[in-house]
Amino acid sequence: MSTLDKIPVMLYGFGFIGRMLARALLKLKQYDIVGVIDINPKIVGHDIGDILGTGKTGVIVSNNPEKVIRNSKPRVILHATTSFLNQVFPQIKTAIEHGANIISSCETLAYPWYRYPELAKELDKLAKKHEVTVLSAGVNPGFIFDTLPLIISGSCLFVKRIKVIRKINALKRRLSFQRKIGLGIPAYMFDKLLNEGKITGHVGYAESAMIIAKTLGFKLSKIVEKQEPIIFNNKVIGIKGYAAGYSGKRKRIYLEFIASANLKDQDIVVLECENYKIRWVSGGTPGDQATISVMLSFIPTILKSESGLKTVADFIPFRTPVYS
Amino acid sequence: MSTLDKIPVMLYGFGFIGRMLARALLKLKQYDIVGVIDINPKIVGHDIGDILGTGKTGVIVSNNPEKVIRNSKPRVILHATTSFLNQVFPQIKTAIEHGANIISSCETLAYPWYRYPELAKELDKLAKKHEVTVLSAGVNPGFIFDTLPLIISGSCLFVKRIKVIRKINALKRRLSFQRKIGLGIPAYMFDKLLNEGKITGHVGYAESAMIIAKTLGFKLSKIVEKQEPIIFNNKVIGIKGYAAGYSGKRKRIYLEFIASANLKDQDIVVLECENYKIRWVSGGTPGDQATISVMLSFIPTILKSESGLKTVADFIPFRTPVYS
Repeated sequence: MSTLDKIPVMLYGFGFIGRMLARALLKLKQYDIVGVIDINPKIVGHDIGDILGTGKTGVIVSNNPEKVIRNSKPRVILHATTSFLNQVFPQIKTAIEHGANIISSCETLAYPWYRYPELAKELDKLAKKHEVTVLSAGVNPGFIFDTLPLIISGSCLFVKRIKVIRKINALKRRLSFQRKIGLGIPAYMFDKLLNEGKITGHVGYAESAMIIAKTLGFKLSKIVEKQEPIIFNNKVIGIKGYAAGYSGKRKRIYLEFIASANLKDQDIVVLECENYKIRWVSGGTPGDQATISVMLSFIPTILKSESGLKTVADFIPFRTPVYS
Repeated sequence: MSTLDKIPVMLYGFGFIGRMLARALLKLKQYDIVGVIDINPKIVGHDIGDILGTGKTGVIVSNNPEKVIRNSKPRVILHATTSFLNQVFPQIKTAIEHGANIISSCETLAYPWYRYPELAKELDKLAKKHEVTVLSAGVNPGFIFDTLPLIISGSCLFVKRIKVIRKINALKRRLSFQRKIGLGIPAYMFDKLLNEGKITGHVGYAESAMIIAKTLGFKLSKIVEKQEPIIFNNKVIGIKGYAAGYSGKRKRIYLEFIASANLKDQDIVVLECENYKIRWVSGGTPGDQATISVMLSFIPTILKSESGLKTVADFIPFRTPVYS
């Protein structure tokens, strides 16, 4: 394959996920990394190969997104900066206005109509105007809590209820993840730091619930989200949180995430159908690897998608009929 | 929803699967059964409600497909007659020529380029000419052996190998299934009846393997398919079969199906990725219910699909990059 046939890809954000994406992309003949954006002064101006330890690539980290996008003309931007759409909105907007398709790991962009309806509307309008596709996906939201149960719903006649539980051993995860869930802080500080947004825990419970509800036609009257610390010897050793989606008093969707020290990795997906129950259990799905795999896997799909702001549900072939 | 808004659906084949589809459709407001075809003289001329025991529906089983399709103008035909494309080809052709989209449970139609390349080419040409979509899907091929592992491949960076094992308790399945696998016949008769096509066992191993290979970009050099009886006291108490897809000497895809007396229902999907392994296990997927669920779930998707002969892989959003 000549360089001309390669799909030009830009990385927006060169933290842990961005670097994993770069490592994978460098192994693939079909993609060309044409630009990398980050604001970290320690890496701006450096060749990404030096940062990754793979040898010079000629791609230099820049903190000037407009310039890089204009000059390198990426067809796809893999975006991995932060979890909150209000913070990343200007980044996504710049990318769209320069005609790039976007796959982002931003959790609240997975179903942005829930927390940021105005921004969602604007993004959709912009994406259509500039004829690009914007999608957020990763391990969660984007896979374990939504895509996978929705696919399994294809085998489940008349879905009544969906429950997903994801358990991970927090000690095996990278430091920034451990910080995000407050691992090791004194127990009394947890609520304060969570309320102040200094720790976030898992972000995107309700987004996954909304993706499921919209696809299955569940009319939810409310979604309850909650996160609490798991405590041992007055220290936070993990986090447990959930979203529960209700139709009236009936709990129809329950999504639980537990990350704790020395917990065994496991994902559990349970669908209650009309006359039977389907239960799938995994021995664990590595979070970061799955996130970059999902992001990379969606590239061909968004390149041929109609334009606009999409969710993973737009690409799931099953529309299981449900009793309303 | 007024009758005018309902999607007109025809059932081609009113055996076990056709009747299950009808029962589900009668519960759904969005679909209208406008015709039912079968050649069984015991049911031709009867109201399907009388056959199902649900009370009169006004829909009468007919053995004249052309007439029923012409008069009732279905947008979708759910086709469930037999497993072999050369036998059902005229049925599908008639449906296409009358402008109906088709979702079939015919196993060899799931990836018809494998066993019937000429018929596949002709169907694709016909479907495009008449602007309809033709798809085969069910529990297998169409779900456990292909769709689900391909979805899971979205979370698996650089898939190296895929293994799926499906185990079912044959005693819990309907009689026609038990006959299909030779349950209860003397052991010495198995090979003869299988070779003569009097028992078929599971049909569609290679089709699932091809769907996986095509989607992941595995270049298979050969596919080996085999089925053998499980014997107890000189009688056949089950069947075990597999497809193995090789790239040179490397086995990249292995799909095994075991149906046997008193076996515990279970599905196992294992993906070997570059640096980790993902393993999902279910407590069983009811075959017939899953088949009709998958067929029904695909209706909205094929109605908006571009025309032509499709496979489930055309609707799977993940194109996981693999080393070639």
